[in-house]
Amino acid sequence: MSIYSKKEMLNARKALQPYIHQTPLLQSRLINEIAACQLFFKCENLQKAGAFKMRGAMHKLLSLTKANRSKGVATHSSGNFGSALALSAQILHIPATIIMPSNAPQVKKNAVIAYGATIIECEPTLEARESTTSEFIKQTGATACHPYNDPQVILGNSTAAQEVFEDLKPDVIVAPVGGGGLISGTALACEFFTPQTKTFGAEPLGADDAYRSVRDGYIHPSLSPQTIADGLRTSLGEHTFPIIHDKVEEILLSNDEEIKTAMRLIWERMKMIVEPSSAITLAAVLKNKKIFTGQKVVLMISGGNVDLAGFFKS
Amino acid sequence: MSIYSKKEMLNARKALQPYIHQTPLLQSRLINEIAACQLFFKCENLQKAGAFKMRGAMHKLLSLTKANRSKGVATHSSGNFGSALALSAQILHIPATIIMPSNAPQVKKNAVIAYGATIIECEPTLEARESTTSEFIKQTGATACHPYNDPQVILGNSTAAQEVFEDLKPDVIVAPVGGGGLISGTALACEFFTPQTKTFGAEPLGADDAYRSVRDGYIHPSLSPQTIADGLRTSLGEHTFPIIHDKVEEILLSNDEEIKTAMRLIWERMKMIVEPSSAITLAAVLKNKKIFTGQKVVLMISGGNVDLAGFFKS
Repeated sequence: MSIYSKKEMLNARKALQPYIHQTPLLQSRLINEIAACQLFFKCENLQKAGAFKMRGAMHKLLSLTKANRSKGVATHSSGNFGSALALSAQILHIPATIIMPSNAPQVKKNAVIAYGATIIECEPTLEARESTTSEFIKQTGATACHPYNDPQVILGNSTAAQEVFEDLKPDVIVAPVGGGGLISGTALACEFFTPQTKTFGAEPLGADDAYRSVRDGYIHPSLSPQTIADGLRTSLGEHTFPIIHDKVEEILLSNDEEIKTAMRLIWERMKMIVEPSSAITLAAVLKNKKIFTGQKVVLMISGGNVDLAGFFKS
Repeated sequence: MSIYSKKEMLNARKALQPYIHQTPLLQSRLINEIAACQLFFKCENLQKAGAFKMRGAMHKLLSLTKANRSKGVATHSSGNFGSALALSAQILHIPATIIMPSNAPQVKKNAVIAYGATIIECEPTLEARESTTSEFIKQTGATACHPYNDPQVILGNSTAAQEVFEDLKPDVIVAPVGGGGLISGTALACEFFTPQTKTFGAEPLGADDAYRSVRDGYIHPSLSPQTIADGLRTSLGEHTFPIIHDKVEEILLSNDEEIKTAMRLIWERMKMIVEPSSAITLAAVLKNKKIFTGQKVVLMISGGNVDLAGFFKS
């Protein structure tokens, strides 16, 4: 029997409501014309800490017992999940520690520090990050928080799609696929709340491990991903893979040029900053018009965290 | 007696409503903390054609008789007003001609063409643009539309502040000052709808003609403006100067570095693209905290048209 249910999802929604933004669902007449369908952008780039990760991180923390909360939490994600966990922990007054590689960009360190978390630096290898994290957890009794491979995180992520369904029963939702946390929550929400809605994945051609995993029926690790969509370089986990395998209609691949074209279209036409890992959903629709023509399509705009240093230097 | 009245302003609001977006009023907790006041961003960057200019352009066209409409309209603004006039004319089925210098960027020409207007190219001097425009008007009987120095345009612009007052009676509104069209409409709206609200102007140090004009009591032309705020390089006109002189509390000056810092803050924290000419309002607040501490401050975010080519090349 599935560990997920409609009741669990509704509970997640209710629990999160005081702590997160109900993000807007925006449209662009011009992009609709180009895409030949009716697009609705679910703007998680306007979420707290700039990404949907806030939903999963906060929901994970809310699921912890008081005793566990007092021992603190830790993660070795230095991306959007690290910031989201730091902010969630700050809001709930839980000590948070983020294990980061010594070569992480200062801007990422600053974001985590601004949210009051502690940083432990380690060698810039996955092995060092994992061993440093488990050593820290052994010593402190802190709870390790995985950025996506955790049912509590997936339930939290499902609340983005749940919000959409209050306004709209779309024909299709397109979500990006990295570790699979957002698309898993989305596909589950579709199943329980609007089963006629199909979930499509959007994945970079240079990091197509989820595409291959679904095709072959087992998890291919993401070994040497090559893509500007930096949020989508991770491998699926044992919690996300089966949901994606069973409930996602198809995973659509786009190359970096297509991602950049879609991203520029959103920036220029909607005056909104979205990261490459989010723009890929529009790239998938523009590349596969036959699938989507005339339909109501929701694009999960997962985040807006882009390094703008280059732009502002000039 | 003033040509402006509360009734005129309400009429403008009603006339425009079917044609423009009621733009959102957004907040950022983090930027509030930095600024030590409560900021409300009136997001005209999310307006049709990406700028408040749509309000004045459309209101000007609505004020024309049927006979005049059939003869078409023309302007020699190649910036946001040119695009806004082209789009407004397209919506109302009025022929529009935009006189542009031969060296105008292709991206600006494309925007105007996409909205169905005709472009006439001329030598890249103000003299050539004016003579080409008056020649065209003599030949065709088209109506010349000035981007800001026109009571119909000012009345149209006043509707942005009118929308704000539905949600909020702020202590202060800060508007950018270029030709003075937006700040004139804003100051008039304050006078008629919420007289306790003070209007401040924000102007680039390198284009401080309005500051000097108000100080000296006559219009200083903007002779060799040097600023990245490309929308604020123009001179005041005889319609905008007296309103600004009489009704604006103070004009605050910022340099390009301060403008860029404010712009980056908005892009990074609000995930929203605003042009330098809009970010200058936040720059003014951050530079003059003493004036604004603890107050409710509305920032007129005039537009979001930024050339992103450099960013997307890299």
